[in-house]
Parts: sequence; C-alpha cells; structure tokens
Amino acid sequence: MSEPEPSLDPDGWTDLRALGHRMLDDMFDHIAGLRAGPVWQPMPAEARAALQGELPRAGEDLAAVYEEFRALVLPYATGNPHPGFMGWVHGGGTAVGMLAELLAGGLNANLGGRDHAPILVERQVIAWTASLLGLPASSTGLLLTGSSMANLVGVLLARTAALGPEVRRHGLGGARLAGYASTAAHGCIPRAFEIAGLGRDALRLVPTDAAGRIDCAALAEQIARDRAGGMLPFLVIGTAGSVDIGATDDLARLAALAQAQRLWFHVDGAFGALAACAPALRPLLDGIEAADSVALDFHKWAQVPYDAGCILVREPAAALATFAQSLAYLQPSARGLAGGAPWPCDIGPDLSRGFRALKVWMTLRAYGTERIGAVIAHCCAVARALAARVDAEPALERLAPVPLNIVCFRHRAPDGWDVDRFNAEIVADVQESGRAAPSTTILGGQLAIRAAIVNHRTRVADADALVDSVLETGALRLAGTPLARDRM
Amino acid sequence: MSEPEPSLDPDGWTDLRALGHRMLDDMFDHIAGLRAGPVWQPMPAEARAALQGELPRAGEDLAAVYEEFRALVLPYATGNPHPGFMGWVHGGGTAVGMLAELLAGGLNANLGGRDHAPILVERQVIAWTASLLGLPASSTGLLLTGSSMANLVGVLLARTAALGPEVRRHGLGGARLAGYASTAAHGCIPRAFEIAGLGRDALRLVPTDAAGRIDCAALAEQIARDRAGGMLPFLVIGTAGSVDIGATDDLARLAALAQAQRLWFHVDGAFGALAACAPALRPLLDGIEAADSVALDFHKWAQVPYDAGCILVREPAAALATFAQSLAYLQPSARGLAGGAPWPCDIGPDLSRGFRALKVWMTLRAYGTERIGAVIAHCCAVARALAARVDAEPALERLAPVPLNIVCFRHRAPDGWDVDRFNAEIVADVQESGRAAPSTTILGGQLAIRAAIVNHRTRVADADALVDSVLETGALRLAGTPLARDRM
Repeated sequence: MSEPEPSLDPDGWTDLRALGHRMLDDMFDHIAGLRAGPVWQPMPAEARAALQGELPRAGEDLAAVYEEFRALVLPYATGNPHPGFMGWVHGGGTAVGMLAELLAGGLNANLGGRDHAPILVERQVIAWTASLLGLPASSTGLLLTGSSMANLVGVLLARTAALGPEVRRHGLGGARLAGYASTAAHGCIPRAFEIAGLGRDALRLVPTDAAGRIDCAALAEQIARDRAGGMLPFLVIGTAGSVDIGATDDLARLAALAQAQRLWFHVDGAFGALAACAPALRPLLDGIEAADSVALDFHKWAQVPYDAGCILVREPAAALATFAQSLAYLQPSARGLAGGAPWPCDIGPDLSRGFRALKVWMTLRAYGTERIGAVIAHCCAVARALAARVDAEPALERLAPVPLNIVCFRHRAPDGWDVDRFNAEIVADVQESGRAAPSTTILGGQLAIRAAIVNHRTRVADADALVDSVLETGALRLAGTPLARDRM
Repeated sequence: MSEPEPSLDPDGWTDLRALGHRMLDDMFDHIAGLRAGPVWQPMPAEARAALQGELPRAGEDLAAVYEEFRALVLPYATGNPHPGFMGWVHGGGTAVGMLAELLAGGLNANLGGRDHAPILVERQVIAWTASLLGLPASSTGLLLTGSSMANLVGVLLARTAALGPEVRRHGLGGARLAGYASTAAHGCIPRAFEIAGLGRDALRLVPTDAAGRIDCAALAEQIARDRAGGMLPFLVIGTAGSVDIGATDDLARLAALAQAQRLWFHVDGAFGALAACAPALRPLLDGIEAADSVALDFHKWAQVPYDAGCILVREPAAALATFAQSLAYLQPSARGLAGGAPWPCDIGPDLSRGFRALKVWMTLRAYGTERIGAVIAHCCAVARALAARVDAEPALERLAPVPLNIVCFRHRAPDGWDVDRFNAEIVADVQESGRAAPSTTILGGQLAIRAAIVNHRTRVADADALVDSVLETGALRLAGTPLARDRM
C-alpha cells in the first residue's frame, strides 16, 4: 500500500521549534511584567467579534494563530495572576507551574489507568497531601478538576458507606438520607447533593456562630430531629476556609460528633486545607486528620495553574466500593502495560485523566511546603493589614471578622442611597480601572466588597491600592461625577 | 510595615528562562524522536522506589527536579504518543497541543465564570463543534475532563428534563426512571447512572446486532415493557464508535424513536463523533444532528493533549435548568469582571476550570477539520489493512468486524491450551517488548487482542509490526521458549 503520510508532526521541526521558543519567551515576559499591566480589562467589541469565526476547515499557519492569541486572548484573560486580583479565591500561578504544563502537554499521559510513571507521580502527590494533613499513609485519593468534583466524590463515598455498594446497582430507591454542613458551606456542596440524586433539601444547613463557624449544638439537635423524623443521617461536612469570610469549623469537634453518630466526616478544605503548610495556621485545622475524606485545591493557595483539585480518602476500600468497575476492555493484568492496579478510574469518576499531578509534584518539590506556607501566612498578614486599613477609613466599614485571608467591607453611603447598588457599582468601576479586582458577596443581606488574598504576588501595597481605588471611585460617585466607563 | 517578599517568582528570570528553553528543546526532541524509542517499557524497581519520597518541606533547585523528571518519568510514560501504541483508545498528542498547554499554563485562567477572553475561546470551540456535528448554532456546551464526565452531564440533563428542576431540590424520591443503551455502551454510562443515584439497573442494556449496533426493535420492546411495568423511560443513548469494536448505532433511527417516545436523545461519541471531520465517514453519524446532547473527546482522534472532553447541548435552557445556581459570592453583574453571564459554572458541574479550550482552539485552527479528518480516515485505512493482514495469517483469527478503526483478533492455540491465557500473555509480552502496545477485551466470552488505531503517527508498517510481534511471540510460546521477561 502506497501510503500518504497524514501525521500532524511537521516535516521539519525548525520553524515550530523557533515559534515555541518565542512563545516561551513571551510568556516569561508576560509573567515577569504582570505588575506593570492592568489586573483585568474589558474586551473591546472588535476583539469579541474576532473570536467568533467559522469552523476552521483548512489549517492555518500556527504563527498566525499565535498572533491572534497574543492580540485577542493574552491581554483579556481572567487577571488572577496579577497581584491586584483579589476577587473570588484564585491562585496566581507560577512559571514553574507553566513549565510543568509544558512538560505534561508534551508527554500527553492519560492517568485513567495502566502501569506508568505518571500514575506513580500522582500517588506520590496524594501521599504527600495525606502526610501534610495528618491522614494515614495508607490513604488514597486523586487529582480532579477542583473541589466541586472532589466534594461530589466525598458525597458519593458517604452515600456508599451509608447504603452499601448495592446503591450503585439499585439506586437510591426511597432512602431518606440527610447530610449536614453549615450555612456558610460552598455552593458546590448542595450541587453535589443534587447530582447524586439526593436533592439539596437532603443537605441540612446548620447556622453558624458569630465567627462564621458551624454551631455544633444546633448540628446535634438537627441530627436528632432528623433521626426522630425517620431520616437517615449519613454525612457531616466541615468547612476549612469558608467562601465568604474564610472561617474554619471546629473540625475536631465535628470529627468527634461524626464518630459518635457514625457519620461519614468529610472536610471541604478547598482553599483552607493548605493552611496546614503554615505552622502558625495549622491549629485552625485540628481535627482534619480524623476526616474520612478531604477536598482541596492546589490551584488556589499552592499557586498551581488551573485546574488541580484533590480528593483525599482515608480508606481505599471506600473509594473502590464506590467507583471500581469490571470492564472487559479495561482489565488490569499482572504485568505489562495493563499492570499497576488499582487504577485511578477505579477510585474516582474519570477514565480520561490528564497529568495534572506533574504541576503539583513540581510545585511542591521546587518550593517545598515551608515556602508555600510562608506565602499563605503572608496572604493572611496582608488581609489583616487590609482590615486595619478599612477600620481606619471613616468612609468604609468592615462587615465580617478576618480569620484567614478574606476581608469583607463596604463603602458607606449617604442616607437614602441604595448602598448595595453603590458598592456594586464601585466594584465594577474598580475592576474596569484595572487597578484592582475585588469581587462581591452578600453578608447578612448586605452587599459586601470582598477581597480574598490568595496570590503569592499580592503585597500590602496592593491591598492599599484596592482601598485607595474604592475610596476614589466612591468619592467620584458621591460627587456625582459621571462613571469612568461613561467617559471611555 | 516592612514586608518580606514571599512571591514565588524568581529574583531574576535568567536561570529559570534558560531551564525552560532547555525543557522545551528536550520535549521537541522527545516528540520528534518517539519512533526510535520503545512504545512503553516497565519501570525498574529503583525508579519506582525513587518516586516514593517524603513530603518536600524545603524547596529544591528546579533543575534537579527536572532531572528527576527526565530520569524517572519521561522514559516510563503511558506510551500513547508513540505510533506503535494501539491499546485502548488514546490520542497521540501534538507539539501544537503541547505549546497550547504552555500558553494556557502561563495564562492560568479559571474558566468557571466571569468575563474574559478564555471563556469566549471556549464558546467558540463549542460553536465549532456544534457546526461540525450539525447541531444548531444556538447550542451550548462545555469542555470537561472526558466523556466519563460528559456522559454524566448528559444523564443529568435528561434526568432534569424528565422530572423537572425540582429534582434538584427534592431528589429522586421514588421515581423509577429507565434509560436505554446497547450492551456495547461504554462503562462510563452505567457509572453515570450510579453517580446520579438512579442505579445502573435503571440503564437497560439492549442487545446488538451482528455488526455491534443496537437492535432498535428490541429497544422499542424494552421501552414498552418498562412502560407497562410502571417505569418512566427518559433517555436513549446512542453510541458512535463502540469501545470494543468501533460500531456506531443507527443514530437517525434512535433519534426518531426518541422523538416519538418523547425521550432525551444523548449520543456517546467519545471517539466516534469526530469521524464527522472525514467526509467518507460522516454518513455513519447520520442522526447525530438530532441529538439533545453529545459527549465526545478531543484528546482522542483530534490528538489534543489529555484531558479535553466535551459536552454539547442543544437547548441551553436544559443546561441552565440542571446546573445554574444563585450564590451570593458568584453573582454575575451587568459589567466589570463579573459580567459575561451565563457562566460555565451555570451549565456544568465544575466551578474551577482550566483553559483546556485553548489546546482545542489552537489544534482546530492550526490543522483544520479537513486534515484531522484525513488523519481519522487514515486510521481507519490502517485498521482495514491490519484486518486484511490478520485474515491472511493462518495463525491468527479475527473476532469482530472492523467498521471504523478497531481490530479485534487472537492467536490460535493448540487443542487443550487455555487460548485466553495464551493471548493475554502474548499481549503482555508484546507490550514489554516495546515494539507495539495493543490491549485486550472480551468478545463473546473470548479474550481478544485489541488494536485501536487512533494515533496520527500510526502507519500500516506499525500495524504490521504488531502482527509480526504477536506471531513471533506466539511462536516462541508455542515452542516452549521461556518468556521474554523471564530472561530479563
């Protein structure tokens, strides 16, 4: 057979190699120069339109495609690598993480299963995470997209523990399960209940105390009420670092309560769990070592590029009972490429799985947990400085305590003004100014300006720039000056 | 405040930049030199042991970490980029995909939401996919890890369509849903039923015809039986490219049946859907344009690096009804960084989401669907050549038709031999030889050697090398020669 050569490899590598090196240099320049640019900027209409082309049937020169990336994508990204980004809870990324992604992209490993080094790298990352949090070395786990998925896995593990593996075959039937978390739990927890078929009403949201921590007495009462009402309590979820204000539940007390009540104890430590890297913060997490499962994200405080979530599971048998399948085309063997059982696809929901472990492995190796812990401690110091500055500004008021790295505050408004709308407009103004990027939340019915200090590049000066920007924008609006964007 | 500088950026960029360029050159060399190395090789015990160190508390020189990657990881990866890899269904990756991962890693965008260019890139990829498959331009969708997740989303969408959005609040209760797929459906489909709380018994596995396609008459009978039995049929899943032999259901007939029965019509096109890029293969997919949702993977036949799955959804309202949440800390706004609603987190299960769209966007732009279609058509031609070679070898027998790119066969064995074990040992021998990497499956109770031609680098000569290797290994075993591994 005279065969055409359809390979997507180039005929010669010189041009592609040169372009790759140019890309790499550009991205180094981009990261090194972040601080000089805007945190975020809105996309001009022409750029938006240019990203709406027809399906490309013929190929194009990669250099031209790259130029479009440079013109249309690079300047208009999320903004989270910038030190002025404080919206939501985003990590900043590092050049080390970028290089790991380069290597992983070239290696193109699929970590669903089989016997190869990338799987061992992931197992090592899981073992390190267990060690960091004080779970047994025999724990298992996986890297996933993020805590949305990791918390779903936690709910599924608890579901199996409560109903037995037959739930996989027969479904929920009429089982009336009840799980527990505080009202401060992240929205991905009720979503996990929805996906799992339990419905979010099966998640009992227990009130918090003034510090934003779950009220353990109220929790015990709710469990008793549910048992009396014929429900089957099965799961307690503790939060380490609440999304709104960064509060951490009393995990030791939750662990004891879960054990006494024979409930699965899961911790959503999406960003808070890695505070274990900082010795001064580790006591906040006391009790996490007793968890049956923990969800956390390396793309937040560990600064690993998106996405890199993690589920840690104390008992490997629980993960296998929930996910292992016996499939003709995925039979592990004693040797050869099909060795290495159990495979990750037997302890989690994915079969196709990229090598996101590499960027975590390289990040932890290159920086070590002590330096990451120093970053985390510094973020909290910046947050405290920001809170102090807010407290010192008569035009501002703080709306929540600052137990970790999140500061919620607002600009005061004259009587008769819609203070929520005023603050929402200030936040959009500040974002559009490119100087800082806070987000918003609602606390006690009031809209808050929320600054989450997660980025390793963020300094006290950046927090001050946020406050300056809020004050200046607020003053302009109070003076009736047209909005910045109206003048654009 | 005299502030320490905790940033993870280097003090100077020179060394890191130089190391990055070395990594890039090494990875180009690795990809360009793939063919000269083994497809896969087992890890020596020392290398395994070296990947089991303690949690790194202090950081290390990145160059040293990279040397470990070079020594311990790079030589012992999955093998799928190699032209001799035919196990399971893995794409080969490209240097273009690697460079896209470099750029995405440096950009570090989170595509859970907000208003930024990476989200528009993803929307464009989804629009292109809809265009390719003939779904309306108004379709929505997302990139996900892979078809395991995409099929789960399809099941969840169908569940909402059947029970209404209240299922998210109240759970399944006693609803007795029934879904339908063929016995050839991938294992991630029953897993999706398990995760969704329906239980895998709620998935009715309908027999296939001799070509491995769902028996539509049997399907209609099963639906009627279930309705008569008080079940609520809600979902028909068609397969485009079955995992064992590459069969594609009659999607047009399934679409008509689903419409007549008012069932959600989902297509699992994990690898088969992209056959739409090849004009000669497109007719196999007729009817896919009528699907309510389609799952597919770009990391398979589109050669995008892992992971890059996709869910395409005809009606955006269905996705919003299943996933949209209203959360205080994730309020979209009319302008600013929090603009751009609806956000991806409102149409899928993840909140933290990496920029996997970039590698798909760059791949489709740089190669175009025609060239990818040529790769796909060539894979099928290689499979046909492999089948012909198998048919011509007296020692081999083919075990299934070859409608697409998968060839299942086995080595004949003398009477009294355990032919399954004999073939399983041959497969492990061949894998360990480094010359080729087939996998196995079970067809009609018989273990088959399975070669899936998915890699753009695989030529007829590689398929011949697989057959040669199977024949030589088989002959050695028949002659009673000690196993290759026993001599190692």
